[in-house]
Formats: sequence, structure tokens, C-alpha cells
Amino acid sequence: MTDGPDGIGPAGDRPAPVIAIPAEAPDWLERAVRDGGGQPGPLPDADALIHRGGPAGLPALPDSVRWVQLSSAGIEAFLAAGRIDNQRVWTSAAGAYADQVAEHAVGLLLAGVRGLVTAAAQRSWRPELVAPRVTGLAGTTVAVIGAGGIGRRIVELLVPQHVRVIAVNRSGRDVPLADRTVPVSAVEGVWNQVDHVMIAAPATDASRHLIGASVLARLKPTSWVVNIARGSLIDTAALLDAVTEGRIAGAGLDVTDPEPLPPDHPLWTTPGILITPHTANPGPLAQRDLAERIRRNVERFAAGQELLGRIDLAAGY
Amino acid sequence: MTDGPDGIGPAGDRPAPVIAIPAEAPDWLERAVRDGGGQPGPLPDADALIHRGGPAGLPALPDSVRWVQLSSAGIEAFLAAGRIDNQRVWTSAAGAYADQVAEHAVGLLLAGVRGLVTAAAQRSWRPELVAPRVTGLAGTTVAVIGAGGIGRRIVELLVPQHVRVIAVNRSGRDVPLADRTVPVSAVEGVWNQVDHVMIAAPATDASRHLIGASVLARLKPTSWVVNIARGSLIDTAALLDAVTEGRIAGAGLDVTDPEPLPPDHPLWTTPGILITPHTANPGPLAQRDLAERIRRNVERFAAGQELLGRIDLAAGY
Repeated sequence: MTDGPDGIGPAGDRPAPVIAIPAEAPDWLERAVRDGGGQPGPLPDADALIHRGGPAGLPALPDSVRWVQLSSAGIEAFLAAGRIDNQRVWTSAAGAYADQVAEHAVGLLLAGVRGLVTAAAQRSWRPELVAPRVTGLAGTTVAVIGAGGIGRRIVELLVPQHVRVIAVNRSGRDVPLADRTVPVSAVEGVWNQVDHVMIAAPATDASRHLIGASVLARLKPTSWVVNIARGSLIDTAALLDAVTEGRIAGAGLDVTDPEPLPPDHPLWTTPGILITPHTANPGPLAQRDLAERIRRNVERFAAGQELLGRIDLAAGY
Repeated sequence: MTDGPDGIGPAGDRPAPVIAIPAEAPDWLERAVRDGGGQPGPLPDADALIHRGGPAGLPALPDSVRWVQLSSAGIEAFLAAGRIDNQRVWTSAAGAYADQVAEHAVGLLLAGVRGLVTAAAQRSWRPELVAPRVTGLAGTTVAVIGAGGIGRRIVELLVPQHVRVIAVNRSGRDVPLADRTVPVSAVEGVWNQVDHVMIAAPATDASRHLIGASVLARLKPTSWVVNIARGSLIDTAALLDAVTEGRIAGAGLDVTDPEPLPPDHPLWTTPGILITPHTANPGPLAQRDLAERIRRNVERFAAGQELLGRIDLAAGY
């Protein structure tokens, strides 16, 4: 037996940490804590807290609490409310949901390039309509806009499909596996080099209508645009025009602007548009991923190891 | 400079081999021959022949022809016609089309597990209908039936998606990357261990209705069946019952039985069924892949190297 990383004593001899969980916590959450080697217990004596929901529901924290696990990937609301302090370690669920959302994004892209969007609309055997829409993914170049957990996972899924990826992020620091990484300040040079565009970037004032008429004009009649981020990153009217006029092949959208999309909106009936109603990461899958993240972090906490999704208060994420 | 593998002389000094191509061959075929370092020329003096079409159109071959490249992946018709001899090397296009068809198969599976089949049928924002159909691919177990070029490529595409693959082939010899390989003689033990089934096996008397009522009864309400091989491998009536009754989630079919599927067939209007009209590998993509195979094989032929897709007459493929 060796000393634990914080020198308290032999790791194997430690008592199970006491982890406070919300009142009336679901069974799966309590199970995740126990499976990670934690002991659910009352907040006043707890070593850590698992919190669900937003900043309003966060209780006052006793000094004994050395770690707080939040359940969302984004923490803007907690930062805005000033609830994240320097007295303890805070972790978000950042990255925990990346597998599902990235898989959804790649599913939407394949639905486009394999002609499935056109095929799904047929009620008879029409290869003459479907075959021209099958352009294939292997050998193409795809821009992945945003290189957080989801964007990086999209790259991991595309590369084995013989896709060349141009990743776009703020810093321009190389994204693993990407053929090339471009800082968002130089994104204008990317559009005419790619076949398809995947949007996985946060919604900010700067990213609003990132995909508008001038960008769409530089894509190809075989290009697909996939958005699993936020609807505001695409200029909906410009997208509708480009698809309707055949200047790009189509779009797979898990998010829309406006959202929810009203039933009389023309996107619903435009050939080449596939919409999933913000279902890239539905509740039961998200719960499974959060439970696994909690289990792993409790296990790491009990062992004195670095936690996953640790928030850097200075960096703001 | 070193001697070529057949000892004729320094590889760099060889004259370009004369490659006979069909009369009125398309430009892309002649270009593929030239790009590979071959010299298109008349059959009587040719070193090799690129043949398109079936055995009926195959000309009598002069002794000078040491290699014949066929354009199809399957060669049953040439074997049945007794046209493949022991006097020269014969190559098929086996494996050349695997990327496209495997990509199509994975696209159909993702369309299922990401709820895209249900989403494509909506004309309004209905997350309550779509979300329950999103089950996700990561973490599931998939049976890949058939481990030729297409099946092996399907495995390569699934594994990076955190899928556990059970491959089924004739010999039971390990398929690279698969978690486990099972001989088809033991396939009965596979069905209740898998979430989804991908069919990439040849159509034979033995494989007819491989997926019938008894197999479908052992799958799950979340299971998808994907068929990019031949329609006869699935018992269509049993599949229709299983999907209609919700005993499996659905099916993605590039091939059907009967094929073409008549317009009044109930498969067209059954929720959970996605049909592409045998468009996994449409003409332009197949031509691109065949051109690349011809180019590479001419290059190898010119260099005296082993050719791709070499037919083993004794083995029959």
C-alpha cells in the first residue's frame, strides 16, 4: 500500500467519503455515488455535494464540503449568480454528454450524404431520385466549427470514415486528429475548402448567424450543413434559400431558429431538410451519462485523484 | 535500382505494359490505365485486359495476356460460364466498393438509433414522439453477419463509435477489431446477445431467410436490423410483423424482397422502416472506386507486384 496523493494515509484504508445528494434524489443518483465508493449522507458533515439543477437551488455550503459536482455541461448561470467560489473544487458535466451529441451530428451528416433524407420521403421505389443524392462521406473534407468535448468527439468519429477534418476553434491550437486547425478569426478561408460543415460551437453574440448567405454561397451543391449547437448560429432564411435553390444539398438540424419551429414554417416541407426536435441527448441517455460521470468522479475523489470536468474559475468554464 | 520482383530487369527500365481496354471505353477508364503507368493498346499484343460486363462479352484471350481485371466484386457468373482459366492472373473488384456500402450500412443504423426515421416523418416539433426513439449507438453490441470486404469495413466503422461487435463468418476465424467472431454454424447463440444486426453476407440457399420470425423474437424492442446485402436474407413478412408489433424498433433496408418493392407494399408506410432503393453504391461512386482500383492494379502490374482482388480459382472467389 502506498500513501494517497494528498498524503492523508494509505489509500486503501480511507473511510468512504460522505457525499451529500439532493433531497428525494432518484435511485440512480444514489446508486452512482455508492458505486463510486461514496457514502450518501447529510450536507452538514459532507465531504462533497452532488447538485442537480440551477444556481437558485444550490444550498449554503459548510466548510467540510471540498467538492461540488454540477449536472450541466455549461455553467454560465452559476458564474452569473456568483455561486462558484475558490474555497473548494467545482466540477461540471462538461464532456459527459459528448458521445451522444457527436453521434447524433454524424448520424445527421450520414443521413444527408447517403441520400436517406430523400429516401425517407419516398413511398415507392425511385432510385432515379435517390441515387443522385448519394454522394458519400469517405474522401470528403468537413469543417468542424467548435472544438469542445462535442466537436473533438465529432472529429474522432469522422476521421475513421476517411474524412479530412478542418477544425475551427478560438485559439487555433491543434485539435487532435484534425488535418488542420484554424482559429475562428481566419474561418473565412475555410468555407471554399470544405464539402460539409458541422456546427458545435457555443452561441455567443460573435457566433450569431455565423452561417449566413455569404458563407452558404461558398459551399457546394453537394454540401450538407449540420447543427447540433444552437439555432442562432445559422441564418434560417439564408439556409432556406440556399437549399430551396439547390445551392447546397441540405441541412440536418437538431436546433432551429426559431425554436421550437412553428408547424407552418417552410423548413418542415423543404426537401433536403431533416429536423430532429432538440433530441440529440434525450433525458434517459443524459441521465445514464451523468450517472457514469458521478460514479467516476466519486471514485476519483475517494482516491484523491484529479476530478473530471474541473471548473477553472479564472477561465470561466 | 534493384531488379523487379520477377527478375526481368531493373523496375525503372521497364516499358509501360500494354493494357487492352474495351472498344469505346469511357475516358475515365483509359485515364485510370494511363495514370497507373499502362499503355492502352490492342488486345492481340496486350499484356493485360481490363474487362467490363459479364462473361458473355469476354473476348478470346491471346497468350500474351498475363492478367485480366474484371469490374464486379462477385464472380459467380464467370465461374459458372467456365471463363476463368489457370493460364493467367485474374482479379475481381472485390473490396473496391466496400467503403461506400459499409458507410451506407452505418448511416442506416445511425438513422435508426438516433430517431431520424421517426423525425423524418414529422411536419411539426414533436420531441415527445422522437426522443423515445433515440437510443444511441455507443455502448451497444452489434452483430455483423458476413465478414467480406464490406463486413470488415462495417466493423472498422463501428468500433470507434464505442460499439462491441460480434462478427459472424463461415470459418469463425477472428475478424480484426471485432470483440468476438462466431462461425455461422453457431449463430443461434448470438441473437440474444446483441442490440442490432447488420447483414453483409452473400445470398445463398443457406442464408435465405436467415432473419426470420424466430431470430426476430430474440432481439429487443430497441433493436434495428440493417440489410445492405440481398433482400432474400430477411423474411419480409416476419420483419413487417415484428416492426409493426413493436417487437423490434425498425429496419434500414437497401435491398428488399421482392425487389423492386411494389408501391402498394406495406413496408413503405410502416413507421420504423427506412428504405433506400438499392442505392448504397450508385454509378458515379462505383465508377470512381473502380477507376482507382484499375489505376492501382495497373501500377502494381507494371511494377511486378501482387495485384489487389486476385481470384483464387480453387477457392471460387
